[in-house]
Amino acid sequence: MHILITGAAGMIGRKLTERLVIDRALNGQPVEKLTLIDIVAPARLAGFSDHEKTRAADLADAGVAEKAISERPDVIFHLAGVVSGEAELNFEKGYRTNLDGMRALLEAIRKTGDGYKPRVIFTSSMAVYGAPFHHTISDEFHLTPLTSYGTQKLMCEAMLTDYTRKGFIEGVGIRLPSIVVRPGKPNKAASGFFSGIIREPLAGQEALLPVSESVVHTHASPRSAVGFLIHGAGLPREQVEPHVNITMPGVCCTVGEQIESLRRVAGDKVAARIRREPDELVMRIVAGWPHRLEGKRATELGFTVESTFDEIIRVHIDEDLGGKFVA
Amino acid sequence: MHILITGAAGMIGRKLTERLVIDRALNGQPVEKLTLIDIVAPARLAGFSDHEKTRAADLADAGVAEKAISERPDVIFHLAGVVSGEAELNFEKGYRTNLDGMRALLEAIRKTGDGYKPRVIFTSSMAVYGAPFHHTISDEFHLTPLTSYGTQKLMCEAMLTDYTRKGFIEGVGIRLPSIVVRPGKPNKAASGFFSGIIREPLAGQEALLPVSESVVHTHASPRSAVGFLIHGAGLPREQVEPHVNITMPGVCCTVGEQIESLRRVAGDKVAARIRREPDELVMRIVAGWPHRLEGKRATELGFTVESTFDEIIRVHIDEDLGGKFVA
Repeated sequence: MHILITGAAGMIGRKLTERLVIDRALNGQPVEKLTLIDIVAPARLAGFSDHEKTRAADLADAGVAEKAISERPDVIFHLAGVVSGEAELNFEKGYRTNLDGMRALLEAIRKTGDGYKPRVIFTSSMAVYGAPFHHTISDEFHLTPLTSYGTQKLMCEAMLTDYTRKGFIEGVGIRLPSIVVRPGKPNKAASGFFSGIIREPLAGQEALLPVSESVVHTHASPRSAVGFLIHGAGLPREQVEPHVNITMPGVCCTVGEQIESLRRVAGDKVAARIRREPDELVMRIVAGWPHRLEGKRATELGFTVESTFDEIIRVHIDEDLGGKFVA
Repeated sequence: MHILITGAAGMIGRKLTERLVIDRALNGQPVEKLTLIDIVAPARLAGFSDHEKTRAADLADAGVAEKAISERPDVIFHLAGVVSGEAELNFEKGYRTNLDGMRALLEAIRKTGDGYKPRVIFTSSMAVYGAPFHHTISDEFHLTPLTSYGTQKLMCEAMLTDYTRKGFIEGVGIRLPSIVVRPGKPNKAASGFFSGIIREPLAGQEALLPVSESVVHTHASPRSAVGFLIHGAGLPREQVEPHVNITMPGVCCTVGEQIESLRRVAGDKVAARIRREPDELVMRIVAGWPHRLEGKRATELGFTVESTFDEIIRVHIDEDLGGKFVA
């Protein structure tokens, strides 16, 4: 099996690659070849064979999508895209990368005209939903994104369904909840604090909390995100089509509950490193975000996620901190 | 006020133009200038002044959208598009006309960069919904189109919202129910029979009914469709934003009820001109279509529609048949 990962240098792309390199298989089928592309060339991992290639490429550039599929990958994990904050700040770049890049990929596949029909696993986002919400967002709740990022994800979801229905691809759209704890440096994303209030204290640093502890959100670990993608790639088509975009399950909790989890897992001293510094702008942005996802269909389809936020913290300590933290 | 109508040669475009030429005003504001474009040059109507222009133009062609807005129309009715059946048969043409044409228009507006911010009234469709449905489709039901046409309409709706949110336009998306009775010749659209079983019998001709009389659908007259567009153009922005796409109300009834209406309005002899000829393909297509729209928000916003199918038939007799039919 030949697997192509776009956006392979991103956080989920790297973790997916690591998993595939370790497993050497996808849902029981041996992986013989792995192609990784991103705007910057993804790092080669230890354990890579000669049948694994990495390349810097922008799918929205002319000819790039055609080249990306020229060796007919059986499975494509399409993770490439700019994040929410960047799509909001740079309108043209957001549409170009998130919409045109995906469309170029789908069009390249359609135009092969030789019966080539890869499985395409696309990472969408809960950003396809927009306020006002009910207590819980059901699988049948309308799609009214309130960001450019969410708009582009919705447009891509719609194409994924249509190209699947027309027989050009076998699409699966994975609508991710908020993925925490993101390893690495803090970033400027408005959602950054959801990871920051866990990551920084565990690293012995102070973290700022810009919103109220009553804010509710739905989370999954990066490990679960990789699990979603792999499970999605293996689902029988009759369980996926025609509505190929699936809202993932997650751990719904308040920020206060996140902090209590941190206290249970790492102790009072760690939890005390969170400093409350209300930020009106962040509060206003977060108020428009989806909070509590039901994810009923996904659960019925066998997608699994952590059952507590404690587990999500432990995944971070295990996977990104080598089992240790600054007590 | 300068009004631009794209797709002005189509059925709704023509009826909207007629209404504006008669009213010489839009929601109380005088119309000084009218620009009509379509793939084929729209016919000039009697009563046109020198300030009204018609032009053949394809918005998806380079430079056309820029030219269309070069005189800064205050209100744009964007009706241009290929219909459902054509978008299904010709995949590339559907995306080009329905998606790229709209995007070119929005981009041309955005790129003026001089504070130009027209009101853009876009005709969307109930095709943004896909089966399975509940008894009634509420305003919060998810958007899962099962046709290329519905996919393109959904993608355009999403852009309309985003360009509005970013302050480039003042968008309103009008999700039309099935518009009947369409005047003119029968066409090959799978939905054609909804008009055909009324139009042909009233013209003294036989009509074929390919589906069961129990099929439920939501209808509005072309006159109501024009009313929706005009009302939508005049709504206060705070009532429209941020969710600018609004599902219109309609008359929900079965095909059997449509036929009973025809009998009441035009007599037994006319209703007897309908011949049952079940068509498996049409039945299968229609089964995936939205049936009963609630349209609650639209009603609250003051959009009005016929209250019975009898009225819809009478609008056709009045508007398209000069008050007469073949008894």
